[in-house]
Parts: sequence; structure tokens; C-alpha cells
Amino acid sequence: MKKIINDPNQVVQDMVDGLVAAFPKTMKKVEGTLVIARSDAPVSNKVGLVSGGGSGHEPAHAGYVGKGMLDAAVCGEVFTSPTPDQVFEAIKAVDGGAGVFLVIKNYTGDVLNFEMAAELAEAEGIQVEKVVVNDDVAVEDSSFTTGRRGIAGTVFVHKIAGAKAESGASLEEVKAVAEKVVGNVRSMGMALTPCIVPAAGEPSFKLDNDEMEIGIGIHGEPGINRTQIDSADAIATALTEKVLEDHDFSGEVAVMINGLGATPEMELFIVNKKVQEILADKGISVYKTFVGEYMTSLEMAGCSVSLLKLDDELKELLDAESGAPAFRM
Amino acid sequence: MKKIINDPNQVVQDMVDGLVAAFPKTMKKVEGTLVIARSDAPVSNKVGLVSGGGSGHEPAHAGYVGKGMLDAAVCGEVFTSPTPDQVFEAIKAVDGGAGVFLVIKNYTGDVLNFEMAAELAEAEGIQVEKVVVNDDVAVEDSSFTTGRRGIAGTVFVHKIAGAKAESGASLEEVKAVAEKVVGNVRSMGMALTPCIVPAAGEPSFKLDNDEMEIGIGIHGEPGINRTQIDSADAIATALTEKVLEDHDFSGEVAVMINGLGATPEMELFIVNKKVQEILADKGISVYKTFVGEYMTSLEMAGCSVSLLKLDDELKELLDAESGAPAFRM
Repeated sequence: MKKIINDPNQVVQDMVDGLVAAFPKTMKKVEGTLVIARSDAPVSNKVGLVSGGGSGHEPAHAGYVGKGMLDAAVCGEVFTSPTPDQVFEAIKAVDGGAGVFLVIKNYTGDVLNFEMAAELAEAEGIQVEKVVVNDDVAVEDSSFTTGRRGIAGTVFVHKIAGAKAESGASLEEVKAVAEKVVGNVRSMGMALTPCIVPAAGEPSFKLDNDEMEIGIGIHGEPGINRTQIDSADAIATALTEKVLEDHDFSGEVAVMINGLGATPEMELFIVNKKVQEILADKGISVYKTFVGEYMTSLEMAGCSVSLLKLDDELKELLDAESGAPAFRM
Repeated sequence: MKKIINDPNQVVQDMVDGLVAAFPKTMKKVEGTLVIARSDAPVSNKVGLVSGGGSGHEPAHAGYVGKGMLDAAVCGEVFTSPTPDQVFEAIKAVDGGAGVFLVIKNYTGDVLNFEMAAELAEAEGIQVEKVVVNDDVAVEDSSFTTGRRGIAGTVFVHKIAGAKAESGASLEEVKAVAEKVVGNVRSMGMALTPCIVPAAGEPSFKLDNDEMEIGIGIHGEPGINRTQIDSADAIATALTEKVLEDHDFSGEVAVMINGLGATPEMELFIVNKKVQEILADKGISVYKTFVGEYMTSLEMAGCSVSLLKLDDELKELLDAESGAPAFRM
């Protein structure tokens, strides 16, 4: 296992400490937890936005903590849902009196544990609402999911719901815009290589030297098919066509070409070239494009393509200033 | 070779097209070249800032084109210096009448070709100045270098000289601040794995399954020593101590923990934790920390640590707004 780590069982603790040490003006650790919160949390009379999940998807989710995005991120063990008590700590840390909104990727463990935390919080008088993100069009159910998985499109929910909350919107208004994003975002990914969970020490699956997998999940969950590695154009086409089939993207969209961890940025731009050509051919107008590592799977090589259909409200919120260190505009 | 590409000999062309397609409001391709310029270049009466070099280091250099950073980046073939005529095209594209400033990483080919381009430009009446960045403390001479190599610290030169040029400074003033950064920045890197130049199809060197190399260059040039993989703390210590020995960093610094391409961001934060502890122990105050992929080597796994000693001028310029899509503040 070639990794720059200390104790494989302490990677999340070390990462959380290193993250807070990097951005002390922006974020803080909630003592005794693996929760990272905005340094000024709780912000009075602002809806608190909480997300998180298993670690190993960095910069998601803790890199998106900051003004205009998340108020807190809960860092579970690698590829493991955070426990309800950790999520509850995050809710309490960001409750400024206007309620707390949870952005949950659709994995069975995450949904259960965030919902249990919401119940604990409500029992203490904190109003909690939530949205479940299920943008991955690859498969309907998966190893860890009933229904579709939540992947890179989740970052659009963080950005847009975060900007809405920052603007002083109510819990209901934040929920409404988050649901609008979830309704309008679709993604699909592929991988060339697996990744290794530090505590396991071995790849969780295998791909032959000439193989790739289309539709793979961000934990290596099976996708649609394994084939010989094809060209960037063919990969971009496979991902984009499947995303486009699933929703009416006529009008304006935001595009995210997301790297899964070990993919050179050069390759992401090569994919982007073809994605933009496909969209132009279909008469779909691109308002803004994001290329980089937004939602990774440790050192997996691969990428995902996300499209978000926009309206004026979503454009304004997408463009709003963000203080989160990892959100490349 | 597991890569998401089309023709291995066309990767730079495809990348340049995909990059400009991603950020059309920020940058444009200079037609018939592999030069990417600010969309509003040339900016009248502003010093034009040009950098570049071999491709394969993305987001360097083209991702740093934008207001407040580079006016143009020249994209050579992968790990290959751009030709003088390409650099000359970049100089002409950004000459707004106040002169053009070149930021060159210290590799023999880059220095020669940028200098030849400068001569061509001067023959046409364009005033050109330059700085050569040699921040890598690992080795004094290397495969491609007389003197020290230029690596991730170069991004600080882009940011700070770019902000200075944006403020309306003269060519001499831009040169002075760039030289100040070069005088005050030091870096060192290490790798766990090699990378594959697409047109070659094979790794340019080998590292055993339990091996790492300390002091390696961003093209895989030999470093100081190969040893068994050590802990993140030991790696962070080896890099940071060597950097600290080389310069007086008392006072305030900026820190960059740079990923070489395939290193999970989690691991960069684990390295950062230890780097910050070492600096705190020495009484060195950290003004700002940058963690992410700033100067990569395709899909090499590894990282580098850079320190920049700051003064009030450098802090202000480091903090100035940047419109470059890849510069994560």
C-alpha cells in the first residue's frame, strides 16, 4: 500500500487536524468529534447547513465548510457513514436558531444515521430539514443504496443551498432550493483503477490492465459494464449521453468534470472538450464549467460528468461568493 | 497505459481546447498556437505576465491564466520546453505597451527558449524582463538543469507578480517583487510512484512496491535518496527540515502542500498537520496555507512542501483577488 499516512486507523483524525490547521480562519474542529464547523459557527438566525459522510472523498465534504457553503461537515471513517451522535454534534454546533438543513448523499447508512441525528436534535427543540441527493444515473440500486447513489452533483447542492442560507433564507426556502437542485442534477462516473481503503490495505476490487468500468460508484460499487479502455471521446460520450437521456437539460446548464483522485487534470480537460461539443451539438447552453477534483474516491483513477439545469435563481446562487477553501469557482 | 485520452500525440492540443472551452470568459487560445491568454489580452498599459513550460503539470501553468495572475501560459508538449516561437507568440499576445515579464522554471530548455523568445520580442520593440525560479532545494544540478530546479514555489511567483502587475506596477517593479519571491521561496518533493508520458506509454523510471524517493523532480528526475516508504510524519519532517535549513524563515510564512497528481487530498492534509507542528515548534508563524494540486507530474503519487517567507507587500499581493480558475485561495 503506497500511501503517505501514519497509522492507517488514524487517517481521519490526522486529516481533520491537518485540515483545520490549514484553514484556521475559516474552520474549527468541534472538540472531541470528527466534525468540522465554520469558525464563526453557530451564526445567529442563519440556517445551518450540515453535510458529510464517509471520508476518502476529499475535498468533500470538509473542504466545503466556509461562508456561503457548509456550516459543518461530519467526517466518518473512510467510506463509512458517520454515527448519529457525530451528526448530532454537527447539528448542535451550527444551530443558530433558524434551524438546520442536512444534505445527505443517498447511501443507506448515511440516510439512517443523519435521520436518527435529526430526531435527536428535534427532541432538543432544533428544527431540522433535509434533502437526499441521488444524482448518479448509472444504476437504480447498488451495494449500499436503495435507489440511486449520491455523487459529485452533491457539491452543487452544497454551493447553492449554502448561498441561499447565507442570504438569510428560511429553512423552508433552503429546502426548496436544495430540492430544486436535486431535481435538476444528474451525474455518471467511470474508473480505470480501484482504490485502497487504508485500514484494509488492499484494493476493494480489481480491474485488468486494459479494463475500465463505466457507471462505477465513488466507493468502487459496481457500475453498468466493464470494457476495454476506450478513447476519452468515447468515455465522455458514454457518460454524457446517459446523463442527458435522464432529464430535460434544454436551456442552460452548469457542467462539472470531476476527477476521482488520481486522474491528471490534463485528462479532465480532454474529457471536457468532448462534453462541451456534445452539449453544443444538442443546443444546450453552458453557463459555467467546473473542472477538477470535487468528490473523489481516494486514489481511484477516473472521472464523472455532472450536469445541472439552471434557472435565474440557481445561476445567482452558483455565482455567489464562497469562503470554502476547496470550492474552485 | 491507463489514461483517459484520445491520440497520445495530441493530448496537449486536446487539453488546450478543453481548458479554453471550460473557461471561455477568462481565457482564449491564441489561434494557431498552444498559447492560452487572458480573454481580454492584451491589457493596455499593464505589464503582461507570461509563464509556461512543458505540459503535464496541470493546473500549472494554464490554469493560472486570469485577472491578477498570468496573462498567458505557453503549453509545451508533455514534459518538453515550448519552442521559442510559441513563447514569442505569447509575448506578442499580451503586450499592452508596458512590457512583458517572463516567469521561467529553471530547466535548461525552458531558460534557453524563453530567452530566445525575449530576444525576438525585443527586436520588435517589446520590452521584456524575466525571473528564473529555482525553489527546489533537493539537488544543486539535475538531469535537465544547471542549478536548482523550479517546482511548486513557482505558483507563488505567478500569484504575487500577477497581483503586482494587475495593480499597475511598472516592469521594473514587477521584476523586483518576483525576485523577492524567488529569493524567499524554497520547496522539496517526494514520490511514491512514477508517471507515464502519454507518447512514451511506459513509466520513465521505476520504484519498488515498498519504495519512495525523496527529493524527486516534477519530471521524475532523481532526488536525494530512495528508501522504504516511511510514515507521513517522517516524510513531512524530511521535506520541511531540508527546506528550513536552506533559508531564514523566521517571521511569517505561506505554506504550500502540493499534490503531484495521484495523491489523495486526505494525505496532503495529514502531511500538513505535521508541517504545521514543525513550524510552530520553531516559532515560525503561518500566515496562510495552501493545500491541493498546484504543480503536478501527471499521475505521480507524491507531494511537495513549499515555504515562502512573507513581508507586508507579499502578504497583500498574495491575498489580492485572482480570477484564475485553478488558484484555490
